[in-house]
Amino acid sequence: MFEVAELGLEIDKETFKQREPQLREQLLELQAALRDAKIPLVLVIAGVEGAGKGETMNMLVEWLDARGIVVHALGMISEEEVERPRYYRYWRRLPPQGSTGIFLGSWYTSPVVKHAFQQIDDARFEHELRRIVEFENLLTEEGVLVLKFWLHITKKQQKKIFKKLEDDPDKSWRVTPLDWKFHDTFDSFLDTSSRALRITSTTTAPWQIIESHDKRFRHLTVAERIIAALKARLAQPSLPKIEKPELPVPDSVNVINSLDLRAARIDPQEASKEIKELQSRIGQLSRTLLANQRSVVMVLEGADAAGKGGAIRRVVKGIDARYYRIVPIAAPTDEERAQPYLWRFWRRLPAWGHYTIYDRSWYGRVLVERIEGFCRPEDWQRAYAEINSFEEQMAESGVILLKFWLTISPEEQLRRFQDREATSYKHYKITPEDWRNREKWGGYEAAACDMVARTSTEIGPWTLVEAEDKNYARVKVLRTLVERLEHELPHTPRLKPK
Amino acid sequence: MFEVAELGLEIDKETFKQREPQLREQLLELQAALRDAKIPLVLVIAGVEGAGKGETMNMLVEWLDARGIVVHALGMISEEEVERPRYYRYWRRLPPQGSTGIFLGSWYTSPVVKHAFQQIDDARFEHELRRIVEFENLLTEEGVLVLKFWLHITKKQQKKIFKKLEDDPDKSWRVTPLDWKFHDTFDSFLDTSSRALRITSTTTAPWQIIESHDKRFRHLTVAERIIAALKARLAQPSLPKIEKPELPVPDSVNVINSLDLRAARIDPQEASKEIKELQSRIGQLSRTLLANQRSVVMVLEGADAAGKGGAIRRVVKGIDARYYRIVPIAAPTDEERAQPYLWRFWRRLPAWGHYTIYDRSWYGRVLVERIEGFCRPEDWQRAYAEINSFEEQMAESGVILLKFWLTISPEEQLRRFQDREATSYKHYKITPEDWRNREKWGGYEAAACDMVARTSTEIGPWTLVEAEDKNYARVKVLRTLVERLEHELPHTPRLKPK
Repeated sequence: MFEVAELGLEIDKETFKQREPQLREQLLELQAALRDAKIPLVLVIAGVEGAGKGETMNMLVEWLDARGIVVHALGMISEEEVERPRYYRYWRRLPPQGSTGIFLGSWYTSPVVKHAFQQIDDARFEHELRRIVEFENLLTEEGVLVLKFWLHITKKQQKKIFKKLEDDPDKSWRVTPLDWKFHDTFDSFLDTSSRALRITSTTTAPWQIIESHDKRFRHLTVAERIIAALKARLAQPSLPKIEKPELPVPDSVNVINSLDLRAARIDPQEASKEIKELQSRIGQLSRTLLANQRSVVMVLEGADAAGKGGAIRRVVKGIDARYYRIVPIAAPTDEERAQPYLWRFWRRLPAWGHYTIYDRSWYGRVLVERIEGFCRPEDWQRAYAEINSFEEQMAESGVILLKFWLTISPEEQLRRFQDREATSYKHYKITPEDWRNREKWGGYEAAACDMVARTSTEIGPWTLVEAEDKNYARVKVLRTLVERLEHELPHTPRLKPK
Repeated sequence: MFEVAELGLEIDKETFKQREPQLREQLLELQAALRDAKIPLVLVIAGVEGAGKGETMNMLVEWLDARGIVVHALGMISEEEVERPRYYRYWRRLPPQGSTGIFLGSWYTSPVVKHAFQQIDDARFEHELRRIVEFENLLTEEGVLVLKFWLHITKKQQKKIFKKLEDDPDKSWRVTPLDWKFHDTFDSFLDTSSRALRITSTTTAPWQIIESHDKRFRHLTVAERIIAALKARLAQPSLPKIEKPELPVPDSVNVINSLDLRAARIDPQEASKEIKELQSRIGQLSRTLLANQRSVVMVLEGADAAGKGGAIRRVVKGIDARYYRIVPIAAPTDEERAQPYLWRFWRRLPAWGHYTIYDRSWYGRVLVERIEGFCRPEDWQRAYAEINSFEEQMAESGVILLKFWLTISPEEQLRRFQDREATSYKHYKITPEDWRNREKWGGYEAAACDMVARTSTEIGPWTLVEAEDKNYARVKVLRTLVERLEHELPHTPRLKPK
C-alpha cells in the first residue's frame, strides 16, 4: 500500500514558489464557497512520526483563512470525557456548518497505537475500525466533508530525520523516547496502519497517502488534493426538495396493537404502595452508580398525552435531584441544527452516577421526521443503524440504557386532550398540531413497529408499556428500571419477586 | 441577622396538606409564565449543614416542572475548569432564557468556607464578596432573576440532627467528619456567613433567610417566597423600545485623532525582517506558556479594513496551530442570544498554553451596540465596569491579556475598500453595511475614545496602533506582544532593545 509513497518525488524551490500563491488563492476561494454552502469540513492528518504532520497542519492553517478553523491536537482524555462513551470527545469537537476542524490525533490514534503495541487483539482492532467506518459514514451522510491524509516516509528516512533533530540543540526536545519506540516497531506499525487504511478507506472518505519526505512536495500535494476534493464536493448537485411522504400502514396484527390495553390495569391504592416501594429502591440503587462507574440513560417515547411526563416524575422522585437531568426534546437550537442530528444527544450524555432522561429522543428521526417528511427516506432508513451504533457505544462505556414506548388508544388520547384543555395550567394547552398528529395515528403506529423491529437489541431493548391506565404504566416503567439496575449493579440485593 | 430564623416557627401536618397543592399549582403556572417571558431563573440554596439544602432542592424540582430545570451541585473543579478563570464553571452552567438553574454549592461556597477556616484573610474575603456582587448585578441587569435562600438552624439543632442521622444505620453515611468540623466551628462559620450575606444582599438579589428546623415550615416558606418573587418579576413592565441613539461627537483633540498616522511608517524590507524575528520569538515564548500555567487572550478592534485580520495572521504565524484559536465575532447564535452578552466570550477562554484571539470582541457592546442602538444606553454604560471585572478575573487566573485598537484614516479605509472590491475573493466583498458604517466615523471615534478612557487599565492596557501603514501596524502589534510575554514569563531572556 505504502509503495505508492516511496517514489522519491520532490519539488524544486522554483516550482514551489511559483505554485504556492495560486494554490493559496484557490484554497481561500473554495473555503469561502464551502462557508456559503454551509458545508462542514473535517480534516484528519495522520501518518508516520516525523513525516511532518504538525508542519502540514500549520501550513494549512496559514494558507487557509484561520478564522474558520479549529485545530484539535488531542492528547490525554479529560475527566469530563473519561466518564462518557469514547467518541464523546470527537462529537463535542465537530465543526459546525461552514467551518473546518483539523484533527491531529483523531479517532484513529488509539486503536492503531494499541494494536501496533499489541495491547488489543485483532478482533478488538477490527471492531474499532468498524466503529470508525460507521462514524465517518454518518458524518458524510449528514453532509460533512471528511478528508483524510496519511503522511508516509520510510524507516530509513525516519531515522535520518530523528537524528538530524537530535543533533540540533534547538530542536532536540522534539524527539522523545516514544518516537524511538515507534521507530523500533516501524514495520509492525506499518502493518497495522495498512490494515486500518484498507478497512476505513470508503468511497465517501478515502485515505490519501502522501509521499512526505520532501516538504515542498508534501505541501503542494496536500493542497492540490484538498482543492480537488472541495471542488468535487461543491460541484455535487444540491439535494432535491423532500416530497411529502406517504404514510406507512401498520400490519393488521403488530407488536403495538396486540398489547391488551384494557387488561393492563392496576388498583390505584396498590399501585400507589408499589410505586413508593420502587421509588425507594431506585434511590438505593442509584446511590451505587458512581462507585460502579455507571450512568443511566432513559428514553421515553409514545403518542402525545401517553403519560411520558408523569412516568418520568415518578421515576425521579426517588433520585436526588443533583443526579438527574430531564431533557425534553423539542425543536433544535441553531447550534444543534448546524450539526449531525445525533449531536444534540451526545452533548447531554450523563457523567458517572448521573441519569439523563430524554422525553422524546433521537428516535424522533424514525418517528416524527419520517412521518412528517422532515428528512429524506434515505435519512431515516440509515438512522436505524446509526442509532444502534450510538447505543452500542453507550453500552460499552457503562451506560445503562432503557427505552420505553408508552401505548394508549386514540380514544384515551382524546379523553386526555379534553381533560387538559379543561385545566388551568397554561403550558398544557393543546395545540392544533396535537390534533393534526391524531390524524396520522396509523402512520405513527407503523413507524413505531418498524423502530422496535430494528432497534430493540440486547443492549437497548424496548419495553412496550400499556399506558391506558396511567398507574399501570408507571409501575411497569419503575419496575423495569429496578430490575435492570439490580441486574447491572453487582452486590445489591434483589427486590423480592412479585 | 440570623435571630429572625430562630423563632421556633412550625407548620402542622394538616395545614401543610392543605397548602401544598395550591402552592404547587401556583409554582407550575408561574414557571410556565417565566418560560413564555423568556426569563432565566437562578436559584441559590445555601446555609448551615444539616438545615435541609438537599431536601429543599428535591422539593423544588418535584413541585416545579423538572423538565425546565438543571441542578448544579458543584464539587471538585474539573481540569477543564482549573485552567480558566474561577467563574468559568458558573458561566458555563448559566440557565438559558426561560429555564432554571438551581445551584447547591455556588460562587459563595469557596469564599465562605475558606474564610471560616481562616484560609483567606479579611481583605481577600471582601474582594471575593465584591466579585459576587458584580457577578449577580450583571446577571440581574441582563434579565436573569436571581433568588438566594439561606437555610438556618441553631448549633443545638444541628447537633441533634447529626446525632439522629448517625444513629440510623441507613443514614449514618450522610454525616461526615467534615460535618462535625463544621459543627465545631459553627460560630465562626456563622460570623463569616453573616458578613457575606450583609455585603451580597443587594436590592435586586437579596438573601432570604429561612427558619429551617421544621421541614414543613421550610418547604412552605421557600415555595411562598419563590411565588412572591416570580409574581413581582412578571409584573414588571417590559422595557420600552430602544430609541435611535444620538451619535456621540469626538473631542476635537483626542487619543485617537492625535495619533500621527502619516509619520508612523516603516520600510517594507526592514518590516519584513523584523516581523520574521518577532515571529520566531513569539514561537519560543509561546512554548513556555504551558509550563508557566499561563494563557493568552488577544483582542483586536478597529474600523473595517483597519488590518485586524492581517495583523492576526502575522501573530499566529510563529505559533503552533494547535495552540491558538481565532474567534471572529459576528452575530451571536441563538444559544448565545439566550445568555448574558459576555457568555459567548467566557465559553471560548483558552486553556493553559493556548491563545484565544478575538477578531472584534466584547467591546462590541460599547462600540457597535452603542452606536447602532442595539442595546439601551444603560446597558453599554454599565458594560465598562462589567468588562473591567471580566478582565480582572482573567488576569487573576493567569491570562495574559492584550488589547489593540487599529487606527486608519477614512481616506485610507476608502482606498482599501476599493482595493477589496477589485479582488476576486468572494468573501472580501464589501457590504452596504460597510459603506453605512463610514458615515458614522465620528461616532465610532468618540465611542472608542470613551472605551479607552474607561477600560485601559493596568491589567488590560489598550495599545493604540497607527495602522495607516500595514507593516508598521503589524510590527507594533508583534513587538507589543513579545515585550509583554517577556515581561510575564520569567526565565526567558529578553529581546535586544531596538
